Amino acid sequence: MTTAAPPVEVAFYGGLGEIGANMASVEVGGRICVLDVGLTFPDAEHFGIDLILPDWSRLRARAADVACVVITHGHEDHMGALPFFLREFPGVPIYATRLTVGLLRAKLEEHPDVSADLRVVEAGERIETGPFDLEFVAVAHSIPDGMAVAFHTPHGTILHSGDFKLDQTPIDGKPTDLPHLAQLGDEGIALLLADSTNADVPGHVPSESRIGRTLRDVFDDAQGRIVVTTFASHVHRVQQVIDAATEVGRKVCFVGRSMVRNMPIARSLGYLDYDDESVVELSDVDRGPRDAAVIICTGSQGEPYAALSLMAAGQHRQITLERGDTVVMASSVIPGNESAIYRSINGLSRQGAEVVHKGIADVHVSGHAAADELKFFHNIVRAAAFVPVHGEYRHLLAHARVARETGTPAEQVFVCEDGDTVVLRDGRVTRGESFRPGRVYVDGLGVGDVGNAVLRERGKLSEEGICVAVVQIDQHARVVEEPQLFQQGVFYEREQPELMGLAAKALGDDLIRGTAHDSDPAVVRRLVSSALGRFWRDRTGRRPVILPILVEV
Amino acid sequence: MTTAAPPVEVAFYGGLGEIGANMASVEVGGRICVLDVGLTFPDAEHFGIDLILPDWSRLRARAADVACVVITHGHEDHMGALPFFLREFPGVPIYATRLTVGLLRAKLEEHPDVSADLRVVEAGERIETGPFDLEFVAVAHSIPDGMAVAFHTPHGTILHSGDFKLDQTPIDGKPTDLPHLAQLGDEGIALLLADSTNADVPGHVPSESRIGRTLRDVFDDAQGRIVVTTFASHVHRVQQVIDAATEVGRKVCFVGRSMVRNMPIARSLGYLDYDDESVVELSDVDRGPRDAAVIICTGSQGEPYAALSLMAAGQHRQITLERGDTVVMASSVIPGNESAIYRSINGLSRQGAEVVHKGIADVHVSGHAAADELKFFHNIVRAAAFVPVHGEYRHLLAHARVARETGTPAEQVFVCEDGDTVVLRDGRVTRGESFRPGRVYVDGLGVGDVGNAVLRERGKLSEEGICVAVVQIDQHARVVEEPQLFQQGVFYEREQPELMGLAAKALGDDLIRGTAHDSDPAVVRRLVSSALGRFWRDRTGRRPVILPILVEV
Repeated sequence: MTTAAPPVEVAFYGGLGEIGANMASVEVGGRICVLDVGLTFPDAEHFGIDLILPDWSRLRARAADVACVVITHGHEDHMGALPFFLREFPGVPIYATRLTVGLLRAKLEEHPDVSADLRVVEAGERIETGPFDLEFVAVAHSIPDGMAVAFHTPHGTILHSGDFKLDQTPIDGKPTDLPHLAQLGDEGIALLLADSTNADVPGHVPSESRIGRTLRDVFDDAQGRIVVTTFASHVHRVQQVIDAATEVGRKVCFVGRSMVRNMPIARSLGYLDYDDESVVELSDVDRGPRDAAVIICTGSQGEPYAALSLMAAGQHRQITLERGDTVVMASSVIPGNESAIYRSINGLSRQGAEVVHKGIADVHVSGHAAADELKFFHNIVRAAAFVPVHGEYRHLLAHARVARETGTPAEQVFVCEDGDTVVLRDGRVTRGESFRPGRVYVDGLGVGDVGNAVLRERGKLSEEGICVAVVQIDQHARVVEEPQLFQQGVFYEREQPELMGLAAKALGDDLIRGTAHDSDPAVVRRLVSSALGRFWRDRTGRRPVILPILVEV
Repeated sequence: MTTAAPPVEVAFYGGLGEIGANMASVEVGGRICVLDVGLTFPDAEHFGIDLILPDWSRLRARAADVACVVITHGHEDHMGALPFFLREFPGVPIYATRLTVGLLRAKLEEHPDVSADLRVVEAGERIETGPFDLEFVAVAHSIPDGMAVAFHTPHGTILHSGDFKLDQTPIDGKPTDLPHLAQLGDEGIALLLADSTNADVPGHVPSESRIGRTLRDVFDDAQGRIVVTTFASHVHRVQQVIDAATEVGRKVCFVGRSMVRNMPIARSLGYLDYDDESVVELSDVDRGPRDAAVIICTGSQGEPYAALSLMAAGQHRQITLERGDTVVMASSVIPGNESAIYRSINGLSRQGAEVVHKGIADVHVSGHAAADELKFFHNIVRAAAFVPVHGEYRHLLAHARVARETGTPAEQVFVCEDGDTVVLRDGRVTRGESFRPGRVYVDGLGVGDVGNAVLRERGKLSEEGICVAVVQIDQHARVVEEPQLFQQGVFYEREQPELMGLAAKALGDDLIRGTAHDSDPAVVRRLVSSALGRFWRDRTGRRPVILPILVEV
């Protein structure tokens, strides 16, 4: 295959290696299609940061060429950054399936300044838009209506798997469409990009349908209140909770903002099935007998103000737990959240509840295919080249191994990271030029104005606090008054009230010695920093931030 | 059994519920024996804290009655706080087994101001000291020479299990001494305190000896450099690494301060067996062929400056990794360390090394008996009463369940937390009075001077930074100059240089309006706080700490 068309470039902005905010772009004929625009949540080292977005600054110079966005499914790490993206690229049409569009609409209501051109597509459909010839394939995942996307280009077909699993008995009867993938494979896939989340987990992921049986058993045994927590997007899990509740004669009650928001959307679009009379309001739960309802709530990751965390702390205004109650954590443990989740479990136990979690019962399965299932996927798709996506570096490496084991030639397996590109030309893939994306932090109203320099400052403040010294100097930079000292986070002043006086005295002595004659402000500042640094180090072993402030009087 | 002797009190200072710094005391006849004096390490929320100690302030008023300390084994969470304890209670004799004493001596060398009266005891031995009649029982654990301790008292016998596992084929041939425990059980145990770490893990822990086979397989396959990381106290694990290395014709090299310190101690005391010629120095490893050695190093938990973390970052001065090298993480994942450990694995993978960890091969087993093994333990000891120890609340609850299932009467199972006590009188256990222990934070040279108030300040600084306003006022508290503003950690000044000027202007306007007439300093401070608070909130959505400083000129 040879064509005069410019080569196709695939670029990776997020989701490969470090940050889990998925975003890629595919450039065909000078036009750019963006594939997923996800966000991720901060770790403990991201002091004060609210959200982390992919860095799409590379696209700014090409704004006129950004032709469309495709969102593979409705998870935050695939669509969460879209409101921010649309502020920079207004009017770009967004293609997604029905449920994804429904969830996007609800999300965009929280950003009234953003308008979006949302276009519903369906798995199985093939559309043309500009130079893009796109085909959508149904995939099963931990949210309904997910899809893989094939880009038919003059240089060959690129298939992006989205997030998927190979559950052969999903509860909506819609497994990942392997026949469709096989047909694409027959036609020839030049480049496959596929989900690597579980590529280092051997074996197969059990079916979601197994959870339903466990839930029924647990509900059968439960005497008191039942609380189930899961992700507010996991419609199938919620369906199983509703079904099990109905079977044991309980109603369900949705608690937590995103749960209350999402479930009616999923229901109105036909992805969730329940009668009005099987749902009760929280106020009615509170008044009714303890065994009348199953509360389905947010907080599975131990998020500080989520419903379950408040219950664990005994601080939920409407729901109290007591001996004999049961809490089911029908959810995964997202790495980094372990301590918070264990804190929840300990708190719930202390309230008297029995806590059922995936460590002791089958109440959760992953939404991502494991290593041995990925082999099926590769053998069905039979791509000529492969880039593992969606995962930390170790996952990408593991997935590269799977691809080689199933026959992708080693030299056509490209382990990329955010900022890498690959180029497809005449059916062959090569590495392209890399760029250097940062991470864009959202902090309050600011998007991108807090970077690593500010985070380093916050980190230093968090470790040892700050000591501020106000020094009055005359016009010759001679110190004219004993300095005033203030501290935050260095030590507990009430317990050692004398320490600030000693510090001021030590500093004053040094300043008088150092500035007896004419001086200059820079010298005074240095003196303050070194004298106070020494004082705190000797006295406390700590190195607070020292902020010298000179006031000329 | 009735006796005129005062009842026996057991008090819990740490290790039950929240902080993993184990410490208990047993009071017999007015004298106090302290059982373990451990420390624990800070979480992300313990900004700048170095270590966390149990709060033994309750013992201060009773210093003259503190008769002895027993250390069950040589792990930090059981003996690490001893140097701090001995500064307050100098001269108290400390009983421990040979290896524990050896490791304690090495630890105390780092605290030259502390002297210790270390007394070696042996498992199987029974000693009397003051009113204490102590019997030591050998237990297997992830460090050799651990023991359980029985207190024979006038009111009945109390057995404390220490940390233990029930590996029936430990590599030193010394399983937990069940016959000895059975004999104590025959004589009658009034109160059992036992390790709950794995009480919520169903089943049995595999034998340590299984690791050796896996290591040999991995070493057999490895072509390049081999690096193994494990805990520097896990002598049996290290023994297996040495044995496997020897079998494949490699020498071993110890890397990392605690590894280099501990292994010769373990060897000289007879707990570790290797020839001089099977060990090489790091400098020789560096010069030799890549397949000549197995490097055994610290850093299994992703600790920032440990050997393995430096290798993962490509920053270790002597050891570089490349494609074809193998890293074995023969270690557990301590909750809270997941992100750091995954970062290590990603870094090592990026260097080209194949990383073998417990998720993909049998390279680690736990040192604590799991739920079904605990049932053996309870059925052998047959205690009349039980307090689960060593675990978070969920573990303690799970262990209480195990005790009830194996026949301990429910009303004689006491789930306690730090600060609780139980009282043994005439063979019957009741709850005693609780006290309120805090946590003692070590930060630099300070022990206990940083508490939750300071941590809250640090937390607030870490979230949004600090803005300092220096306002010059006259003697009527009228503002005489435009205020000077400084910030740390709020935003990046270089990118928005105008923002500080705008803030000063906003503040100045408010101050002039508010202090046109005579004012007072408190009013000025309030004005500064509210004006700046509003400015930053409106402009950035952030709420930095505001520190108003008035300078009267």
